[in-house]
Amino acid sequence: MGEVRSGELPHGYRFAAGYAGIRKVRADDLALMVSDTRAHAAGVFTRNAVRAAPVDSSARFLRETGGVARMLVANAGNANCATPNMWAVAEATARRAASLAGVPHNHVLLASTGVIGEPFGESAIPDALPGLWAGLDRSQFENCARAIMTTDTVPKVRYGSAGTGSTGVRLAGMAKGAGMIMPDMATMLSFLFTDAAIEPGLLQSMLSAAVDRSFNCVTVDSDTSTNDTVFLLANGASGVRIGRGNAGEFQAALDRLTRELAMDIARDGEGASKLAEITVEGTATNREAKTIAMAIANSPLVKTALAGADPNWGRILGAAGKAGIPFNPERADVFVNGVRVCAGGLRAKFDEPSVQRTMEKDEVSIGFRLDGGRPGRAVVWTCDFTQSYISINADYRT
Amino acid sequence: MGEVRSGELPHGYRFAAGYAGIRKVRADDLALMVSDTRAHAAGVFTRNAVRAAPVDSSARFLRETGGVARMLVANAGNANCATPNMWAVAEATARRAASLAGVPHNHVLLASTGVIGEPFGESAIPDALPGLWAGLDRSQFENCARAIMTTDTVPKVRYGSAGTGSTGVRLAGMAKGAGMIMPDMATMLSFLFTDAAIEPGLLQSMLSAAVDRSFNCVTVDSDTSTNDTVFLLANGASGVRIGRGNAGEFQAALDRLTRELAMDIARDGEGASKLAEITVEGTATNREAKTIAMAIANSPLVKTALAGADPNWGRILGAAGKAGIPFNPERADVFVNGVRVCAGGLRAKFDEPSVQRTMEKDEVSIGFRLDGGRPGRAVVWTCDFTQSYISINADYRT
Repeated sequence: MGEVRSGELPHGYRFAAGYAGIRKVRADDLALMVSDTRAHAAGVFTRNAVRAAPVDSSARFLRETGGVARMLVANAGNANCATPNMWAVAEATARRAASLAGVPHNHVLLASTGVIGEPFGESAIPDALPGLWAGLDRSQFENCARAIMTTDTVPKVRYGSAGTGSTGVRLAGMAKGAGMIMPDMATMLSFLFTDAAIEPGLLQSMLSAAVDRSFNCVTVDSDTSTNDTVFLLANGASGVRIGRGNAGEFQAALDRLTRELAMDIARDGEGASKLAEITVEGTATNREAKTIAMAIANSPLVKTALAGADPNWGRILGAAGKAGIPFNPERADVFVNGVRVCAGGLRAKFDEPSVQRTMEKDEVSIGFRLDGGRPGRAVVWTCDFTQSYISINADYRT
Repeated sequence: MGEVRSGELPHGYRFAAGYAGIRKVRADDLALMVSDTRAHAAGVFTRNAVRAAPVDSSARFLRETGGVARMLVANAGNANCATPNMWAVAEATARRAASLAGVPHNHVLLASTGVIGEPFGESAIPDALPGLWAGLDRSQFENCARAIMTTDTVPKVRYGSAGTGSTGVRLAGMAKGAGMIMPDMATMLSFLFTDAAIEPGLLQSMLSAAVDRSFNCVTVDSDTSTNDTVFLLANGASGVRIGRGNAGEFQAALDRLTRELAMDIARDGEGASKLAEITVEGTATNREAKTIAMAIANSPLVKTALAGADPNWGRILGAAGKAGIPFNPERADVFVNGVRVCAGGLRAKFDEPSVQRTMEKDEVSIGFRLDGGRPGRAVVWTCDFTQSYISINADYRT
């Protein structure tokens, strides 16, 4: 297939976006994403006790087919959750889309985002699908990313590749952000595509690993919404087969792609003015490090200090302390943008005005390190907590 | 001792408040609370891995004395935490206070609230104590509650009693609120006094039980700050002895007192415009109910909906679902101010404008009920999430 170019879409996919009348404001609210041929597919879903119909349907379809899909249908404006006809909406959507491609209905994966419990007309999506089908085109990838936005301020698309020349494969992904200041129920959707050929079992394990190191590091628990969904399709259009023997480079590319999208989501958190990367080191295990990192990342007091460009290491130390992982504060150092602001649990000597100035920028790094050489390490991302978050969420439905 | 009057302070205690130069703004920042005679004492402390010196000192004193104290010294303006001399500050405070009363230094209980990691002069409190000692008076109880305020907008004091006539005892308590929108590290302090005579072991178990049903129901985990502390002193000045045989009425009075203070804290949460009481019923256990109630109470999406007077039952249902307690959404009902807004996981028929109007008031009740007759039940309190929370916390140190 020739050289892999940077920013190139995976081969063998087409896309379309349109308005199905779901949003109150006239803006694209429906995305159709189709592989030219049968693709292998993997999915990661919310673990919320309350799950939307598209989540349950897609999970069931993947089980029934053993990991095969031909297309994705995603909408914004209505979560298709907790309504009497949510199953009928999902069913009608899958059947209509499948009929256009002449495939079984369970080869259609579904995702929705929007308000929970709002009435959803059963024909809105099916009626709009033929128009989108007719307009499928490779150029519409970013428009699909735009159609699934809710409170996102920018569409999020990323590209990657693995291998070169005749062994090169392409990856591309889109994500729909989320409230994300505190993840809660703000839905996270991400759709990933590659033209590599990968068996469903390996595909699923690679996707699960990548999600754990990316989307699951940008929320307390990316499984908290009723609708959270990540899909990965692999259609083999590159002619390059990835197996357990040569999976490393592809996994690295998939990790990079999902990490970039995860950071895009954090950066575009509701009302966010800056992205924060939080690194915790020196715990016994990676899991302990992640628990502490998440406690820091989710502390409203840390997040508001970030908004105020305040290197408030006391809040960071206190937030770490409440994670439930015992540690000796006298062994704890805190770093802000690489400057040690707390040494051994006490204020370090540092130039506070200069650190404050570095915190005015739109990316801030926080480090929390326990002395003692233990190997546990984790990196998570979050954003600051500003006034806008409140106004966005207090007025969401009105 | 005669009839117990409503709102009466327990006998045998005196109080004083003053300015020790700890706050930047000149306002009382130091409180001295003294029993005329040796009292029995119990304490409940934060479980944060990072604990302030006054917390560790007080816990050690209670162990050393087996639950005896003569006085309490509490300050606002500095947490006395994560500074090189925090132990020296605590030690100097306890020794100076003890010398005034001629008691061992470990009969002095300590509490602090304020910024973590700020320098704290070792003589500030000791130098101010003699002036407070000279001014001790029963009338100064509420002034002490005022001296320990940080971002609280009102002092919080409550009174109670148990028994009548010759078996009557008095209780009184003060609390210092907390960020509390999300409890995190916002310090919660409460000091409770009774003139009943109660042995230390029983006193501690009654206090722990009361805290679990009150202050621990107004936060995810009241043990999250570096400084959270609740003390209960019982000096026996009423001449009435409470033992295991007659503890019921006293426990009920203590529960009521602490619950009222806990609700006062939630009502006065940073930037809060309303108090929300969240009741969960129908789980297998009380613990499951509390886990779900806390997930609802701590959801920023639910809290912002409260601020917007939006009966957004979808957010409540979704927040309940992410608590990690499996349930069938088709058995879930949601109530707002007594009106069923979600029935069996679906929108109920209700008059939305009229429910919205009831949500404009300063108290809102949310109910979440799982059908099926299981006995688990919990009530927790929280407040709404407004713009002011952000400005209070983004600018706290500046």
